[in-house]
Amino acid sequence: MRVSEATLGVAASGPMDAGERATHSFAMAARRLAISGHVPSEDFLEMDPLWLPVAVLWERFLRFDPGAPAWWDRDRFLVSSARMKPLSEAFLRLTGSFGAGNDLALGACATVDIPAGLAGQVIATGAGMALAERVMSEHFGKSLVGHRTWVAVGAADLQTGFALEAAALSVRHGLSQFTLLVALDAGNTALTVGLERFQATGWAIRRVTGDNVNAIAAAMNWAQRSKKPALLVFEGCAVFDEDDVADMAESSWGILARRGLSARRGWLRRLARHRQKATFEKSFDGHFPEWMMEDWQRTWMASRPHFPSHLSIFDLGLQAVRLLRNCLPTFVCLSASMKGLEAEWSDNSFDCGAYEPAMVGLLTGLALHGGVPGCCVVAMGSVDRIRPALRFAAMTRQGILCILVEGAAGPGGEIWPPVEQLASLRAIPGLAVFRPSGASEVEACWSRALTWRQGPSVLVLSQEKGDRFSGRTVMGGYVLTECDEGVEHRDVTLLATGTEVRLAVQIKEILSSAQIRTAVVSVPCWEWFSDQPEAERRRILGAAPRVAIEAASGFGWERWIGAEGLFVGVDEYAGFDGVAAQEAGFTWSASDIADRIVKFLEKKNSALVRKNPHISLAIGNDVTG
Amino acid sequence: MRVSEATLGVAASGPMDAGERATHSFAMAARRLAISGHVPSEDFLEMDPLWLPVAVLWERFLRFDPGAPAWWDRDRFLVSSARMKPLSEAFLRLTGSFGAGNDLALGACATVDIPAGLAGQVIATGAGMALAERVMSEHFGKSLVGHRTWVAVGAADLQTGFALEAAALSVRHGLSQFTLLVALDAGNTALTVGLERFQATGWAIRRVTGDNVNAIAAAMNWAQRSKKPALLVFEGCAVFDEDDVADMAESSWGILARRGLSARRGWLRRLARHRQKATFEKSFDGHFPEWMMEDWQRTWMASRPHFPSHLSIFDLGLQAVRLLRNCLPTFVCLSASMKGLEAEWSDNSFDCGAYEPAMVGLLTGLALHGGVPGCCVVAMGSVDRIRPALRFAAMTRQGILCILVEGAAGPGGEIWPPVEQLASLRAIPGLAVFRPSGASEVEACWSRALTWRQGPSVLVLSQEKGDRFSGRTVMGGYVLTECDEGVEHRDVTLLATGTEVRLAVQIKEILSSAQIRTAVVSVPCWEWFSDQPEAERRRILGAAPRVAIEAASGFGWERWIGAEGLFVGVDEYAGFDGVAAQEAGFTWSASDIADRIVKFLEKKNSALVRKNPHISLAIGNDVTG
Repeated sequence: MRVSEATLGVAASGPMDAGERATHSFAMAARRLAISGHVPSEDFLEMDPLWLPVAVLWERFLRFDPGAPAWWDRDRFLVSSARMKPLSEAFLRLTGSFGAGNDLALGACATVDIPAGLAGQVIATGAGMALAERVMSEHFGKSLVGHRTWVAVGAADLQTGFALEAAALSVRHGLSQFTLLVALDAGNTALTVGLERFQATGWAIRRVTGDNVNAIAAAMNWAQRSKKPALLVFEGCAVFDEDDVADMAESSWGILARRGLSARRGWLRRLARHRQKATFEKSFDGHFPEWMMEDWQRTWMASRPHFPSHLSIFDLGLQAVRLLRNCLPTFVCLSASMKGLEAEWSDNSFDCGAYEPAMVGLLTGLALHGGVPGCCVVAMGSVDRIRPALRFAAMTRQGILCILVEGAAGPGGEIWPPVEQLASLRAIPGLAVFRPSGASEVEACWSRALTWRQGPSVLVLSQEKGDRFSGRTVMGGYVLTECDEGVEHRDVTLLATGTEVRLAVQIKEILSSAQIRTAVVSVPCWEWFSDQPEAERRRILGAAPRVAIEAASGFGWERWIGAEGLFVGVDEYAGFDGVAAQEAGFTWSASDIADRIVKFLEKKNSALVRKNPHISLAIGNDVTG
Repeated sequence: MRVSEATLGVAASGPMDAGERATHSFAMAARRLAISGHVPSEDFLEMDPLWLPVAVLWERFLRFDPGAPAWWDRDRFLVSSARMKPLSEAFLRLTGSFGAGNDLALGACATVDIPAGLAGQVIATGAGMALAERVMSEHFGKSLVGHRTWVAVGAADLQTGFALEAAALSVRHGLSQFTLLVALDAGNTALTVGLERFQATGWAIRRVTGDNVNAIAAAMNWAQRSKKPALLVFEGCAVFDEDDVADMAESSWGILARRGLSARRGWLRRLARHRQKATFEKSFDGHFPEWMMEDWQRTWMASRPHFPSHLSIFDLGLQAVRLLRNCLPTFVCLSASMKGLEAEWSDNSFDCGAYEPAMVGLLTGLALHGGVPGCCVVAMGSVDRIRPALRFAAMTRQGILCILVEGAAGPGGEIWPPVEQLASLRAIPGLAVFRPSGASEVEACWSRALTWRQGPSVLVLSQEKGDRFSGRTVMGGYVLTECDEGVEHRDVTLLATGTEVRLAVQIKEILSSAQIRTAVVSVPCWEWFSDQPEAERRRILGAAPRVAIEAASGFGWERWIGAEGLFVGVDEYAGFDGVAAQEAGFTWSASDIADRIVKFLEKKNSALVRKNPHISLAIGNDVTG
């Protein structure tokens, strides 16, 4: 049966009973409170339809104790945009659980508002919370984990491809505790198509008359029992007259408060005698708890000697993920289809197939939920697909961990060499990009990423082999090899990240043989390096002319090499016409770059060259700038 | 009936007739040719299933003349990734229409390959080509425009949200000449869900046995007659043994060649006597033809005096779109839902609702098709959603036009003030970002955007009112107001773009009153400015300390202000916690910034301040750096 042809639910009939009238007053009181607030009235027209369904939800279903709004096993209630915020804010105020100040900040509040996100984003966030609930529930049992996730969405949310990907992941990962609420505007054919696509994805869908309290309650009851994620569609919702006067719904919120208190007390009793009480409570000490950090570092140091010697930089990153899981069993790894890498993380992980954008959205939901730290693994070339979700995590300051694999093929089979992707990530405020060059840097970058609280951490890991552990201090940027004569005698400073660090060391050898005193500075993380004192950064970067080498676009590198520095990289999609993308990219050899550097230094400082008249000879005469 | 339960098409039975055998040999010959080429054999396993269906397509359906492979009214045949390229390359070689060198470059070749794109991208590109066909056909009639678009896709393509958005737009805009081909791997449940979602979107779907020539042909015939976009799913495709020997399929490609030649001759005859012949031929003089450029500039200059005086920068941009339409009736405008702006471009435009990512993908398809120039209009906040499509346009060097509206609410209702979005766009090689500050700059930027061939042009247009026409020379970056004493006497140079240019002029007034000699440089387009000779850029930027002002992140600005310059902007998602995004952002006043500049100059050059001891007094003492 097509969704568009079926209207389920009980039809309104007869006069309302006392219970229904109380719910109506609850809805009207909430709405009046919202209108008297600071939100412009035009915004209310759009969310008007959902006042009664949301009143029913709060009064009869929402697992929520107004006396302890941050109770961990509460239901999560999300709204999709700032325009819908009054829907939750008003009920929070009515139940007395909305204090002064910043109570509606993400994660700090009774319900969780998602105050802003691109259309559809909230569905991925909600799915992430429902996944967190599933993981916790499987680990600690239903007696400690029994909440649900409810999300009020708009028509545009359901239509987006992002939402359809999140919907597919919700089905694939069995998120039966996840319910969406939407109001159906009869003329909106795009929404009708959206509903049919949700149904085709495997969702349970029910259409309900939105002005009938009992029908709404019956549908919510049905959603709670559904084995699939459920979508409730409210048609012909109650429209309230602004002049209508209703009694303050003390009785309604009284019911809610008693139910919530009772549920929380029962939960506290069960927790007190639960054999995993200590582990459970430890899980909530922040997103990546301190104790986990210490455990992980201890395990890592103990395991290091046993790592196989052939590990690539990416393999080293995966070792870190495995050890994180050992430290915290609820640690989750989400992964996208990558050709040839599917089998690498089969344990305790969720395969998200081609749905990379939604996958990263889920990760933010996991982080907002709490208790379930996680990371995701994506091919480097897919970074633009996951960018909206990464930006949302950055805006909401969620410390999610995202591993980008260089040289891996994404779901479409393409391998995209980095060009402007690194720059476009570094431009996101609060997000830290790590691109380690070897084992020591992988270790340091993982440790820093686990404690990076300003926003997401992105680890760009190559499938090439890195160097071994050296016990270096990394600190985001550091002198890997100084010139023999000391920092004040440098002729040039080479800066590089990731796989280009090894190249920089080769170039230093060539230059040194031509008496050009060269230092190599590795900068695996700009954001971390920026946090160092300015004097320290100056000491590391030195006063000599600077050359940056990165197999990517130079956009933004002026920050470290100055406007007069030399950048060697990939500043266009060279050779893309007519050839596969993987054939293009960074093709510089160490001697080519050394030639360019000599030319660059000659221009900068002819004195240097006069001092070393044999330079051109040593490098060769067929240099082309 | 659920897609997964139905297998339509004729079952194979009895021995093959001569025609079927010929098609089989055609497929095998193509496959042998491909294997003997340069593609690694492992890639062949994945595309193996489609050899026979594609052979049937080329032999019996594809409108294509091997003698004139670039014939305009040819069918378009696309493959979704580099791994599938041999599918078209081999048939091109077999039919003798694949020459030496660069013949498979995008748009330069008989069929159009999309050699690389994120999963699902090719479906939007194909939909764009089908839309171009529809627009041209409606304008010039079926006698001149009678081709179709066929796309061979992989399982991952169909699953992505991006593809589902493109699928919805294909139905919404009636693209009945659009057919997808995919091979069904029996165990792939994700693909089955993908098929059901395409069906729910309104596509016509048929499942066919992939080893039966007649069944394949019947399905293609059915797709041609379908009033909806069609998806053909091939099950149990023929697997060829590599040692199998087949006769060279001369007969098959002979049939194809004769059919193609005959079709093209008929078309040429119809064109010769068509009353719109001249207009039709004019349309193919490049993406934005020279003549259109001249027409547009003439019309624009004639209309300028009649523009209402209250126009915002965005309104001025729309005037340009309207005049472009007058110059070229097939000019298409695609627009996304933006609250309050829906009615602005109701004529000759396609509403793409919440499907912004796919919309920009369609635009690239339009450009690759030729004959139908177009632009799209999106809220600035949605830029991350359209980024994969913008990058694809940049990689394929398509000069698409994209208008980003500052201050407009996207489909989800959110208004996102720019933070790192401008930087992330400027980082894309070949893409030009224009952010004009007023009427003269809008005029200059539109003219430059229409002739920008390296890649996409993005016009970031504010809904604030700009200044009037001034007859300035813009050239990407220019001195808007010099200090009275001349360039060599500047104390400071202010750089700004868009709406911050007016602010910079106010700051100059404050600074001038404190005897700080200030020049204002407007930089509406970095990429254009970079194309100017270095000496000219140096002259404009001057030798004095530089300050950049932009209501966005400073990432990348070091290119113009140097590592030692001052940037005033928005370097974090300030105030995002707990407040709506639109309340955050750029809150600097002119006098605040003037204070910061004085502090900055004091540090730089205490001599300046000693020379003007009254500066601190004039600015006020409560400055905070």
